[in-house]
Amino acid sequence: MMITSLSNPKIKEIRKLHDRKERRNSGLFYVEGLRLVIEVDQLGLLPHTVIIAPELLTSRQGWELADKWGRSGVTVLEVSESVFRSIAVRDDPAGLAAIMPQQWASLDLIHTSDADLWIALESIADPGNLGTILRTLDAVGGTGVILLGNCTDPYDPTAVRASMGSIFSKTIVSASFDEFLAWKNRNNCALIGTSDKAEADYQALRYPNKLVIFMGSERMGLQAHHLQACEQVVSIPMSGRCDSLNVAVAASLVLYEVYNQRRKNHKKDIR
Amino acid sequence: MMITSLSNPKIKEIRKLHDRKERRNSGLFYVEGLRLVIEVDQLGLLPHTVIIAPELLTSRQGWELADKWGRSGVTVLEVSESVFRSIAVRDDPAGLAAIMPQQWASLDLIHTSDADLWIALESIADPGNLGTILRTLDAVGGTGVILLGNCTDPYDPTAVRASMGSIFSKTIVSASFDEFLAWKNRNNCALIGTSDKAEADYQALRYPNKLVIFMGSERMGLQAHHLQACEQVVSIPMSGRCDSLNVAVAASLVLYEVYNQRRKNHKKDIR
Repeated sequence: MMITSLSNPKIKEIRKLHDRKERRNSGLFYVEGLRLVIEVDQLGLLPHTVIIAPELLTSRQGWELADKWGRSGVTVLEVSESVFRSIAVRDDPAGLAAIMPQQWASLDLIHTSDADLWIALESIADPGNLGTILRTLDAVGGTGVILLGNCTDPYDPTAVRASMGSIFSKTIVSASFDEFLAWKNRNNCALIGTSDKAEADYQALRYPNKLVIFMGSERMGLQAHHLQACEQVVSIPMSGRCDSLNVAVAASLVLYEVYNQRRKNHKKDIR
Repeated sequence: MMITSLSNPKIKEIRKLHDRKERRNSGLFYVEGLRLVIEVDQLGLLPHTVIIAPELLTSRQGWELADKWGRSGVTVLEVSESVFRSIAVRDDPAGLAAIMPQQWASLDLIHTSDADLWIALESIADPGNLGTILRTLDAVGGTGVILLGNCTDPYDPTAVRASMGSIFSKTIVSASFDEFLAWKNRNNCALIGTSDKAEADYQALRYPNKLVIFMGSERMGLQAHHLQACEQVVSIPMSGRCDSLNVAVAASLVLYEVYNQRRKNHKKDIR
């Protein structure tokens, strides 16, 4: 039966997932749109709940997915267009959304390999920046993100959307700085910080294997005690009036520098 | 006299500037926050109007600026905290904003030099992306941005904020594709497109002087007729599940590749 009431209890529960506190309590998050929901399927993940708005959903693949999951025992809610719009985060909702379980990994259970490329973020505030960093991390074959301090929520709808699905495939960790340091020492990971005051050019460093790139918050960057924990600190040269880059841009430049060096080394190896 | 009414006609005019159509009609735009307003002063620009909320403005520099501009004949509006919050785009407004004239440049009047580095954007939709691209363009000493097709407004408050002030110092052009092509041919500018389908690696190309980097929209990228107009098309390698990067990240990677090549050539030249 189609849900047509905006105050239906299930719909109210779903709408609450736009709020960080409610996400934390439930361990769930909200995913919207064909592209992201297809990615859920392609990764072999099962949603907690699927929401479809028949008046909006024109994609055959979307209908087939809802059908398939319904037969697997996943709760499928059919809702009216106005109900869907009341929970949607996009202006032009495609009529397909899923509720997914959050997947936080614990550092204690993570063992690193030589090919690892992590990014640690200290108190990053903007969910769009966090999602964009996840998207770039995926593009360079990175391993995951370690969130330190007072970071925004990777399961915020804006972060999920900006990640273009990388939220599902990359390892997501939240840890204290001390836990993180103990883990990276135990696993012999190199920690490379970034600071606009560092003397070393980000292109001059030969980045080691088993690497964590470390970026500070939009407002403050890395603080003295963060920088002290790094094996190296690099800066990205700038010659304009602005004295900083967007944090997702800065992270992407350093991640791509690591990736480009690894690509070139790999080419040398196979020659 | 302090404006305390939310429906004061001047305040209503200012609030309208959050709307693109009203910005187009008036030729003005809204700038908020100490950092951006200080940049206006440092560039020697004069605001059309300055707005201060004495209950919010704690910065001495902010007060001094308002005072200085007031003596130069700039209209300074003192408003109550609630009035300021009603026009503010930030959650934690600092109590200082300015109304500025838009500065669109005309291609007819732009002559290029060898050091020029432009970025042309086709139908980019997200103002945050556009502002972030301007910020990176400034960092690499770029010249300006040429907006083609159905682009978002660089004077959107989100774009202005993301540009971190680059909106004031970079050249901003809007043109048809034909006008743009005629200009770049007349000025012997090389046009380098980007596409995830291109075979040339963005790091393999030696980027020429007098250069325009050409990026497509978030959804579609560059279309066939855009790519045909390019001297070269490059792609950024990716090895993850996502098949694309955020457009501001992709633009930043290519802009930095050009900048890094120019830096290295410059080092060679002065040796």
